[in-house]
Amino acid sequence: MTKTLYVINPNSNTDVTAGIAAALDPLRSADGPRIECVTLAEGPLGIQTQEDVDRASVLVRQFAELHRDDAAGFVTACFSDPGLHSIREIPGVLALGISECGVLTALSMGLRVGVIAILDISIPRHLRTWAAMGVKDRIVGELAIGRTVAELSDRKATLDAMIRTGTTLRDTCHADVLVMGCAGMAPYRQLLQDAVGLPVVEPTQAAVAMALGRLRLGW
Amino acid sequence: MTKTLYVINPNSNTDVTAGIAAALDPLRSADGPRIECVTLAEGPLGIQTQEDVDRASVLVRQFAELHRDDAAGFVTACFSDPGLHSIREIPGVLALGISECGVLTALSMGLRVGVIAILDISIPRHLRTWAAMGVKDRIVGELAIGRTVAELSDRKATLDAMIRTGTTLRDTCHADVLVMGCAGMAPYRQLLQDAVGLPVVEPTQAAVAMALGRLRLGW
Amino acid sequence: MTKTLYVINPNSNTDVTAGIAAALDPLRSADGPRIECVTLAEGPLGIQTQEDVDRASVLVRQFAELHRDDAAGFVTACFSDPGLHSIREIPGVLALGISECGVLTALSMGLRVGVIAILDISIPRHLRTWAAMGVKDRIVGELAIGRTVAELSDRKATLDAMIRTGTTLRDTCHADVLVMGCAGMAPYRQLLQDAVGLPVVEPTQAAVAMALGRLRLGW
Amino acid sequence: MTKTLYVINPNSNTDVTAGIAAALDPLRSADGPRIECVTLAEGPLGIQTQEDVDRASVLVRQFAELHRDDAAGFVTACFSDPGLHSIREIPGVLALGISECGVLTALSMGLRVGVIAILDISIPRHLRTWAAMGVKDRIVGELAIGRTVAELSDRKATLDAMIRTGTTLRDTCHADVLVMGCAGMAPYRQLLQDAVGLPVVEPTQAAVAMALGRLRLGW
Amino acid sequence: MTKTLYVINPNSNTDVTAGIAAALDPLRSADGPRIECVTLAEGPLGIQTQEDVDRASVLVRQFAELHRDDAAGFVTACFSDPGLHSIREIPGVLALGISECGVLTALSMGLRVGVIAILDISIPRHLRTWAAMGVKDRIVGELAIGRTVAELSDRKATLDAMIRTGTTLRDTCHADVLVMGCAGMAPYRQLLQDAVGLPVVEPTQAAVAMALGRLRLGW
Amino acid sequence: MTKTLYVINPNSNTDVTAGIAAALDPLRSADGPRIECVTLAEGPLGIQTQEDVDRASVLVRQFAELHRDDAAGFVTACFSDPGLHSIREIPGVLALGISECGVLTALSMGLRVGVIAILDISIPRHLRTWAAMGVKDRIVGELAIGRTVAELSDRKATLDAMIRTGTTLRDTCHADVLVMGCAGMAPYRQLLQDAVGLPVVEPTQAAVAMALGRLRLGW
Repeated sequence: MTKTLYVINPNSNTDVTAGIAAALDPLRSADGPRIECVTLAEGPLGIQTQEDVDRASVLVRQFAELHRDDAAGFVTACFSDPGLHSIREIPGVLALGISECGVLTALSMGLRVGVIAILDISIPRHLRTWAAMGVKDRIVGELAIGRTVAELSDRKATLDAMIRTGTTLRDTCHADVLVMGCAGMAPYRQLLQDAVGLPVVEPTQAAVAMALGRLRLGW
Repeated sequence: MTKTLYVINPNSNTDVTAGIAAALDPLRSADGPRIECVTLAEGPLGIQTQEDVDRASVLVRQFAELHRDDAAGFVTACFSDPGLHSIREIPGVLALGISECGVLTALSMGLRVGVIAILDISIPRHLRTWAAMGVKDRIVGELAIGRTVAELSDRKATLDAMIRTGTTLRDTCHADVLVMGCAGMAPYRQLLQDAVGLPVVEPTQAAVAMALGRLRLGW
Repeated sequence: MTKTLYVINPNSNTDVTAGIAAALDPLRSADGPRIECVTLAEGPLGIQTQEDVDRASVLVRQFAELHRDDAAGFVTACFSDPGLHSIREIPGVLALGISECGVLTALSMGLRVGVIAILDISIPRHLRTWAAMGVKDRIVGELAIGRTVAELSDRKATLDAMIRTGTTLRDTCHADVLVMGCAGMAPYRQLLQDAVGLPVVEPTQAAVAMALGRLRLGW
Repeated sequence: MTKTLYVINPNSNTDVTAGIAAALDPLRSADGPRIECVTLAEGPLGIQTQEDVDRASVLVRQFAELHRDDAAGFVTACFSDPGLHSIREIPGVLALGISECGVLTALSMGLRVGVIAILDISIPRHLRTWAAMGVKDRIVGELAIGRTVAELSDRKATLDAMIRTGTTLRDTCHADVLVMGCAGMAPYRQLLQDAVGLPVVEPTQAAVAMALGRLRLGW
Repeated sequence: MTKTLYVINPNSNTDVTAGIAAALDPLRSADGPRIECVTLAEGPLGIQTQEDVDRASVLVRQFAELHRDDAAGFVTACFSDPGLHSIREIPGVLALGISECGVLTALSMGLRVGVIAILDISIPRHLRTWAAMGVKDRIVGELAIGRTVAELSDRKATLDAMIRTGTTLRDTCHADVLVMGCAGMAPYRQLLQDAVGLPVVEPTQAAVAMALGRLRLGW
Repeated sequence: MTKTLYVINPNSNTDVTAGIAAALDPLRSADGPRIECVTLAEGPLGIQTQEDVDRASVLVRQFAELHRDDAAGFVTACFSDPGLHSIREIPGVLALGISECGVLTALSMGLRVGVIAILDISIPRHLRTWAAMGVKDRIVGELAIGRTVAELSDRKATLDAMIRTGTTLRDTCHADVLVMGCAGMAPYRQLLQDAVGLPVVEPTQAAVAMALGRLRLGW
């Protein structure tokens, strides 16, 4: 049986899952593992509060246990990486998170990282993560576009807000690379990069790329 | 109706709850709020893994919502502070955690803080917390006694291990204050302090003391 | 003999002492220790320069030695904590400082701490303290209102300046909790909090609350 | 014309190049880019001193300019990443370094990273790099095996020394993941991991895996 | 034979060398060592890119080896300190860099250091240096005047830009001391200091002063 | 009137002053300022506690005010730099401290700094200083020889203890440069360096050397 790399969207928004799946197309290859993007139907429509994160952590863990035998690995596709440290406790499981890998990848693309969040309430949670990761000195700013996950589907307004926020990170915080702080922003990477003129990291792509490398290497 | 300060033991071990309740006796006063230590019966016997923490986070939040109206405030009495950031999202709720307040109190008692954990697997989680709190430069060492929450009830073996570990933190890591890294260690504070000769913080006492101050001040 | 918790205002401004004493009223309780706020008559009218701090340090130490036998503990009620580390060298003495406890308490109330100083010349001294305490990563900004201790008695102008400064800390530095950086600001806590919409720490209250907890616990 | 991902061994030791090339086999795929490991014949036999690094930096830059048109990207396969920041100044060039990517990958595999260097004289240079990268708080120790690049070919003695050093990093520094701090150590990854029982990062594999992801994604 | 303290301008711009030599006049004394400012004719006209730095590093090392016997010591007079760590590997050689000594001297003159760079592309390189030196928390801002080394000879435009940038560092970043981030800025120290009202460090003067002290002390 | 550079020994131990004066001989030059080492007769015999430091701070300030007109500058020759920040508040006064300049000089001599203190009780005070200076990441260890200032006059026992401590800093903490953490250790610099094989900084020499440079430069 071929094993599957599961990319878990822990919110129940299938638009987000579809956007992620499309973004991952360039990473699929004939001799690589199957990549499957799944939606956790029991999850909230968007993971925005700490309560959302805690509930999603339990769901992600349950999914990982259920798929332990057929999984090549798991990627948590929410920028708060719910359940990541929990599924890492399952022996022999490859587990990567998009927040972690998004920022780690950005660290190799520019010195000063700017992060675009969806909502102000997410920012303290993310700041705690950068500090917990020991990389906070590289994050020069994190600013929110002020839109919920659901509202990301209004493409025009979302892109406009992302460009405005990215421009502020570039000009005021001196960022030289941007990380999109929500899996639901995946469709806007190229457009944002073209508009702002800085490299932009789509974190689910970053995490899956790192996962694929690890799977090929067997470590 | 007089409101209650709830001290939540998120594991289902009533011995731990009893130990906490006894430790809090000196903080009860005639004109202060009622302090009630509760056991979450659905919680695990000990909160040791990240999975335990995530599950407990959801339970703590549920408890806080249920008691929102009659609560003066909540203290999470587990050294991983499950659910703390979640219940802080409930408007108007005073919420303090023992890991946070234990370390903050220690910062006013000595320069170099040593932490005594129960198990090695807890340590990386705690280290992430010290970093997320921005206080990691003050923690000179965290070492485990290698005993589960359940095993803490063997008083002789537990105290011996705590003294051994505290002595190493004092002599090798140059700690000048110790924090006991598990609510279940509450009964051993004075004995440990006497044996090692350093001030020792019992974190539930520290958190409840800070909570009582906040309640009196009304902020 | 009942022992007394001495709250030492090391400047000679009795208005400041009166303001502190009033702010501490909610912390007095029938079964708690006596709290006495004292003014050091030999101290300067305001502690503003490093020279002021050094001179006050000696005075605070002298006071503590004089009252060593009848003291339950000492709180240094000046935001530069003059003499704090000196009186900590007296064996068996509980000694807390308002700058230290004000910030430690704020760390449990919001992620990003903003500090309101009286004068620009105090700020480098405070910044050295945050760094020495190992908590500087949590202080997102410290700004001065540009008024001496004596000038704090002009209530209208002082409050206006504090609100202006607090608003800048909130909007420009993204502070989510404020610390008032002078004992003389005590009367303005509630008004400032109401105006700016962030929790505000009055540091003498914070320090005395922590001291009372320690006294009840006997450690 | 298909473009090539050049993996540049900047020393002139072809054994090292052969070891790298073998280690990269699992990363080659039918639909991926050509991966070519090259030896810089003018380079020193081993890059051990800062002088070696500076000279190699110029050579790496010259190679990159020469191959600018046929290169899909460049990986500097020396743990001092000579020339990395220089070739990043060539517009449109993907450039990754093994020291950088080795550590970034390790950050997703364990909290406390231990690094195994070849010689003591390399360590201050590496420590400056971890600090410059802003990740030094995650590196719990770096220790040398005391062998030159040339001496790495004595497999038995090298592996023994690596296991001894890795064991010290695990037991004394509490490392939970190891990074091999020299491209010439590539053949020993699995053996070291099996002996020490911690995950081990081979940094050239890590860097090439990240490069391949970036090439597939086109950013 | 009297030995010489060589101050190496690693770019080929003799105007810069002349400016440095004039700035060092106050440091020459009858009983002190000979101070000679040399221009590396093979160097680029200005050291602006990482490629420039890497090439200059090799030239500086070659110069040091050539003058090893008649040198009392070497100062690298370029704000990227090319070759500094390499010439430090030559046993018994006193080697100081202007970037390093400029900042170290500034740390004794004010708490919050602002740096004036020539070009934006230099800034990430400098920021990596401050972090590698472990002093980044003291640098409150580094801003560029947007002029190449060659363009520094237009005195009026350069001074205007430096004053504008220094004023921003003072008012926006709260710098209380400035470091001029290019040896070519030496002629403007006093003028800049007078205009901005903050102490200004000329880094070649700072480095040579420290070198002279070391030479007199013989360590 | 020629102005004098005052080197203030704030303890009343004239042996210490004599040792400093001898150590400064190589820094005196025909065309340099007069250097005068003074003993503060009212100071304690050794500055060991925080209380000592606070009292000495007031004395140092008084001395500086008295000599304001005839002083070229002041160096505080006690490793706790009493009064340093106070005398910096006197406009137009050059004021340097030996603890500050000793460490800053060491930062240019090795990556990993080890400090040799006299007593354990001094160490937390020094650690707060390294953190306040923002250089704590460069200090790999500070260890005490366990001798009071007065006891330093027993040359054999003192040197033995310094060599033992320096060796531990070299071998256990990986220090590559040492700073002697007391002005009274001045006579032992060369002997310690010869015995341990690491460069050793005598901090009064370091501070006076930096002061002389500043005086020649006029900034």
